[in-house]
Amino acid sequence: MTKMMKAVVKSKKAKGAELQEVPVPECGAQEVLIKVKATSICGTDVHIYAWDEWSQSRVKPPYIFGHEFSGEVVETGDLVHNIQVGDHVSAETHIVCGHCAQCMTGNAHICQETQIIGVDRDGCFAEYISLPAQNIWKNDPSLSWDRASVQEPLGNAVHTVLAGEVSGKTVAVIGCGPIGLMAVSVAKASGASRIFAFDLNDYRLNLAEKMGATDTIHSMHADPLEVVRKETNNAGVDVVCEMSGHPVAMDQGFKMVTNGGRVSILSLPVRPVEIDVTNDIVFKGVTVQGITGRKMFQTWQQTAGLLSSGQVDVDPIITHHFDLADFEKGFNLMLKGECGKVVLHP
Amino acid sequence: MTKMMKAVVKSKKAKGAELQEVPVPECGAQEVLIKVKATSICGTDVHIYAWDEWSQSRVKPPYIFGHEFSGEVVETGDLVHNIQVGDHVSAETHIVCGHCAQCMTGNAHICQETQIIGVDRDGCFAEYISLPAQNIWKNDPSLSWDRASVQEPLGNAVHTVLAGEVSGKTVAVIGCGPIGLMAVSVAKASGASRIFAFDLNDYRLNLAEKMGATDTIHSMHADPLEVVRKETNNAGVDVVCEMSGHPVAMDQGFKMVTNGGRVSILSLPVRPVEIDVTNDIVFKGVTVQGITGRKMFQTWQQTAGLLSSGQVDVDPIITHHFDLADFEKGFNLMLKGECGKVVLHP
Amino acid sequence: MTKMMKAVVKSKKAKGAELQEVPVPECGAQEVLIKVKATSICGTDVHIYAWDEWSQSRVKPPYIFGHEFSGEVVETGDLVHNIQVGDHVSAETHIVCGHCAQCMTGNAHICQETQIIGVDRDGCFAEYISLPAQNIWKNDPSLSWDRASVQEPLGNAVHTVLAGEVSGKTVAVIGCGPIGLMAVSVAKASGASRIFAFDLNDYRLNLAEKMGATDTIHSMHADPLEVVRKETNNAGVDVVCEMSGHPVAMDQGFKMVTNGGRVSILSLPVRPVEIDVTNDIVFKGVTVQGITGRKMFQTWQQTAGLLSSGQVDVDPIITHHFDLADFEKGFNLMLKGECGKVVLHP
Amino acid sequence: MTKMMKAVVKSKKAKGAELQEVPVPECGAQEVLIKVKATSICGTDVHIYAWDEWSQSRVKPPYIFGHEFSGEVVETGDLVHNIQVGDHVSAETHIVCGHCAQCMTGNAHICQETQIIGVDRDGCFAEYISLPAQNIWKNDPSLSWDRASVQEPLGNAVHTVLAGEVSGKTVAVIGCGPIGLMAVSVAKASGASRIFAFDLNDYRLNLAEKMGATDTIHSMHADPLEVVRKETNNAGVDVVCEMSGHPVAMDQGFKMVTNGGRVSILSLPVRPVEIDVTNDIVFKGVTVQGITGRKMFQTWQQTAGLLSSGQVDVDPIITHHFDLADFEKGFNLMLKGECGKVVLHP
Repeated sequence: MTKMMKAVVKSKKAKGAELQEVPVPECGAQEVLIKVKATSICGTDVHIYAWDEWSQSRVKPPYIFGHEFSGEVVETGDLVHNIQVGDHVSAETHIVCGHCAQCMTGNAHICQETQIIGVDRDGCFAEYISLPAQNIWKNDPSLSWDRASVQEPLGNAVHTVLAGEVSGKTVAVIGCGPIGLMAVSVAKASGASRIFAFDLNDYRLNLAEKMGATDTIHSMHADPLEVVRKETNNAGVDVVCEMSGHPVAMDQGFKMVTNGGRVSILSLPVRPVEIDVTNDIVFKGVTVQGITGRKMFQTWQQTAGLLSSGQVDVDPIITHHFDLADFEKGFNLMLKGECGKVVLHP
Repeated sequence: MTKMMKAVVKSKKAKGAELQEVPVPECGAQEVLIKVKATSICGTDVHIYAWDEWSQSRVKPPYIFGHEFSGEVVETGDLVHNIQVGDHVSAETHIVCGHCAQCMTGNAHICQETQIIGVDRDGCFAEYISLPAQNIWKNDPSLSWDRASVQEPLGNAVHTVLAGEVSGKTVAVIGCGPIGLMAVSVAKASGASRIFAFDLNDYRLNLAEKMGATDTIHSMHADPLEVVRKETNNAGVDVVCEMSGHPVAMDQGFKMVTNGGRVSILSLPVRPVEIDVTNDIVFKGVTVQGITGRKMFQTWQQTAGLLSSGQVDVDPIITHHFDLADFEKGFNLMLKGECGKVVLHP
Repeated sequence: MTKMMKAVVKSKKAKGAELQEVPVPECGAQEVLIKVKATSICGTDVHIYAWDEWSQSRVKPPYIFGHEFSGEVVETGDLVHNIQVGDHVSAETHIVCGHCAQCMTGNAHICQETQIIGVDRDGCFAEYISLPAQNIWKNDPSLSWDRASVQEPLGNAVHTVLAGEVSGKTVAVIGCGPIGLMAVSVAKASGASRIFAFDLNDYRLNLAEKMGATDTIHSMHADPLEVVRKETNNAGVDVVCEMSGHPVAMDQGFKMVTNGGRVSILSLPVRPVEIDVTNDIVFKGVTVQGITGRKMFQTWQQTAGLLSSGQVDVDPIITHHFDLADFEKGFNLMLKGECGKVVLHP
Repeated sequence: MTKMMKAVVKSKKAKGAELQEVPVPECGAQEVLIKVKATSICGTDVHIYAWDEWSQSRVKPPYIFGHEFSGEVVETGDLVHNIQVGDHVSAETHIVCGHCAQCMTGNAHICQETQIIGVDRDGCFAEYISLPAQNIWKNDPSLSWDRASVQEPLGNAVHTVLAGEVSGKTVAVIGCGPIGLMAVSVAKASGASRIFAFDLNDYRLNLAEKMGATDTIHSMHADPLEVVRKETNNAGVDVVCEMSGHPVAMDQGFKMVTNGGRVSILSLPVRPVEIDVTNDIVFKGVTVQGITGRKMFQTWQQTAGLLSSGQVDVDPIITHHFDLADFEKGFNLMLKGECGKVVLHP
């Protein structure tokens, strides 16, 4: 008799999702089966829930979505030797080919054959998930399930902020969604001397201040460039973390970075962006970095270190909790933007 | 009685320039006076000669233009102790403030108060030039005057190509003007395993092949992306050196670079460029570098090393020589694009 | 009539020093004259005071010693344009040649012709000091004189700790003299997840805990290697900052660093050290860095950023204050090791 | 009936080895079986053959030794999907755990649980070898078997030389055994402006010159430090590749490197080495790197690029060829040092 579980299923090519009873997934020879303890909602999940243009072109209902989680291993495949039943784990959400030039040279996070959990295959908005052993990250058992679940997006923030020097430097975080807020916290923990946080949402700017931003700027109520110019004696900031995806904000990022500074972009603007390459990149000697995922597993190691030491405290960002069955409440909050991270508990 | 000299003067706010008799410049306490032995024509000089939009907004006739040169020191200021009369020298053409955040932290090449020789003050299309001692680069006396003169643009190529790893990597050079040709040569000397050179001019593509390009592609006669795809087994190139300034070519550069690769931009597109940030930078994890000038003086040291060892041979690129008085012949050749570097001899 | 000032003079080739009335130094054309507000005692000063072997071979009495200070500019030379009377300043203590290969390529801190203030020429244990303008670092006027004075040794700590990645990493600081204590603080501010501090002096280990060390180990009361092994699950630490100069402690540093880690050495062992190159460097793929001085002026910029933001608080390390005239009390404390930094006030 | 093959077996705990008929190895589910086409003798093999102290403590006869090879895949395990029968391959000789901190963070080459082919398990001095698929490096079919076989030691040279910048820099290679000779070639191909090669063997110094050394020095017939001092105008070399393992030569390496230079050590001195840390590392601001194996698989990618492009030509270093059965001739040559690489053909 097949064992059954509850799961949030993107069941149709339409807005919304459904709580369903589905079979617990099998555990293959190179896989582990995990009982999900906490799973958090990502902006990507909201896109899928809302059935926007991107999700219509990418995902194939019916399937279980969700990719951020923590849980406990309940079964291991025959070829898995380094993971034990009872281990507390999370998972890297990029399932990579292992054989392309990128995978072979330490850049698996930008593997050309990447499949994403909860996007290209079943995810973790469920009681159980089975995953390839090579994707598993073992958590310290003392790490709370909630904090462990948000390591994945925290890893995005760590990858972005720590893509260059931060200690003693001035940093701008443009866009204060959950990952932007985490970026503020990582920058603070890593010695940034000044952290400018920009957004259009006061709720988030308040959180940004709580996370350590020295200057929070509502980009409609003050001129971002003017603020930076004044506060840095015309020097500009050393580092820009672009998390907004908005072309105007991105342009401001390029204009506020100092000569020789870096602009690390994690956001995904929906269409091509006009960039003044000559004045904003070449003459200024700026370095622009595209940031995808988390380095496997350097970023996870740094992220775990920042969490376990308490250098980064994500608790103020985890603003809401719901039972898995009440997932719709979480999605509605996310759609309004009046929240940090929302955690679901199966 | 003032000593006089011949100089090519941008005398009027109009196309062209004039050979004039002007006073030999004074040698200040922190300066050296140099007898110019060879001076080469840069694309920037052609802009000034042609009196294009950029030069109309930037330069202030009458003044002497030209900035690439080699020469011999004939006088040193009272406060100059490390340079002697008789020294063979060239000069870094960026005169920097020495006090801004960039100058104080090893990035003088992107000083915010940069003045450029031959653009913002008198240049070297003349028999003599006086310059701050801190800008002087001493040449090995065995280096020919011609090679020494083209070190400045060669330094641009070195700065661009060596802004990251090259040895054993695949490199694309987009745009085969003189600096692009030099970039081909520097990439070859530095161990690039494959060098794709792109241009629309067969004369230059022939030179590119001579300089070591393994694949020369006329971008109208073949599809650059198709060629790279096929020749790299769909992997793309590791490094793109963008030297064309053309938005279509730049876009091709972003499309042909492999995931995790770098795009180093030395060119100056005349207007903002549309870039598919999401697909061409973020998802690919690409690093984009704006390249300006030469690192003072790390780039000069590497450039001198490559020249003195014979690892880089610029002679095939130095295609024409004229007396300073015949400068118009040089400019006409440059305007047609049927040349490599043109050297003038005062 | 020559203006006179009080100064602590190393007057004889013997132990000790004398407070004398000496002429206020002249301010050369490229120099500034500074009224000293605070000056702190360095271990090097103690060597000179105690007249040890090293100082007998290096310094040439009579002269004024001392090199850590903060002060106010009271006069500027004719060729100095970027510094004004009234500016609050400190100074880089390495006076460099400006022309050697190191100075020309961004490595002035390891100039082969370095002269050190208070060692090779008159220093700052005095009411006034005159210095080359190029050595001056302008302080934010809101920075206290005491904190400003200890920027120089803090810069050593910053240069050592930030010579590689720290955020989310485990760090060992071996030797908790003032610079070791500062290293603990810099590591903490920069996101180190775990900081192991080692010393043989409980007074200092207590200070280390106050500065943020997560683990303080008296190296005679516990086995350093055993502690690290246990606390890191046999992994070892990512970064070792060697500040002790003791061969046994240094060997422990090499043994406790993880494969692929770095060992950054600021200390100066008095004689050659036996290193198990094969097992402790090669097989482990370790990187060893010699650290001298402060990068000019990248380190100063980071140091100022960490101080101004409050990310690093040096106040707990500044344990004693004396009038300049009471300098002997300060030296006696330093000789006993029962202090952090001692600041003298002229 | 078991299929049999010829193999060179280290059969006893004594000097020498024997050609034996042994079973062709099985091909496990995650393995591939390879028909060996060429296999080259490494210095490590000579240690095992000679039965020195190190090999007595490490290897466990009887077993097949040898680890450098090229061959053709003849069978693939059930779980192997990215490798096909007929593929031309070589192999990374470090078999790593995949789970330790080093393996998880891009440093598998310094995995703490490394097993080495031909040392800790059966090797390739045989007609067939079976290996884990994750260790396989696919060769371009146009690469000759001989060149493909020596990629492994060439990778050591690439890893050492390219552990930092080389183009336009001066490089010293200390010790001109096969890997030292390869290091000369890699440095040349990568733009080194000057290559000083040191050895005590004229045969090898002649080969070094052939590979591109600009200066070959017999360290007993000339004073290495004197030569470098004179030829670099007292500056010293930018990069030292230490390949000798001899304490005197290593000390010379530290003394000849310029301030701020790097010393990359691949050699394995048999006992601890006295190093003047204060003067040779700290005051000079030197970086010392321990080099082990090859980065998986960044080094392989660069190595393949340098070989396929012809930038590095190893043919002059492959001085001798024998049938596998004549392995003793090869070992005798190696023991005398009158050879480059010796290749055996099964």
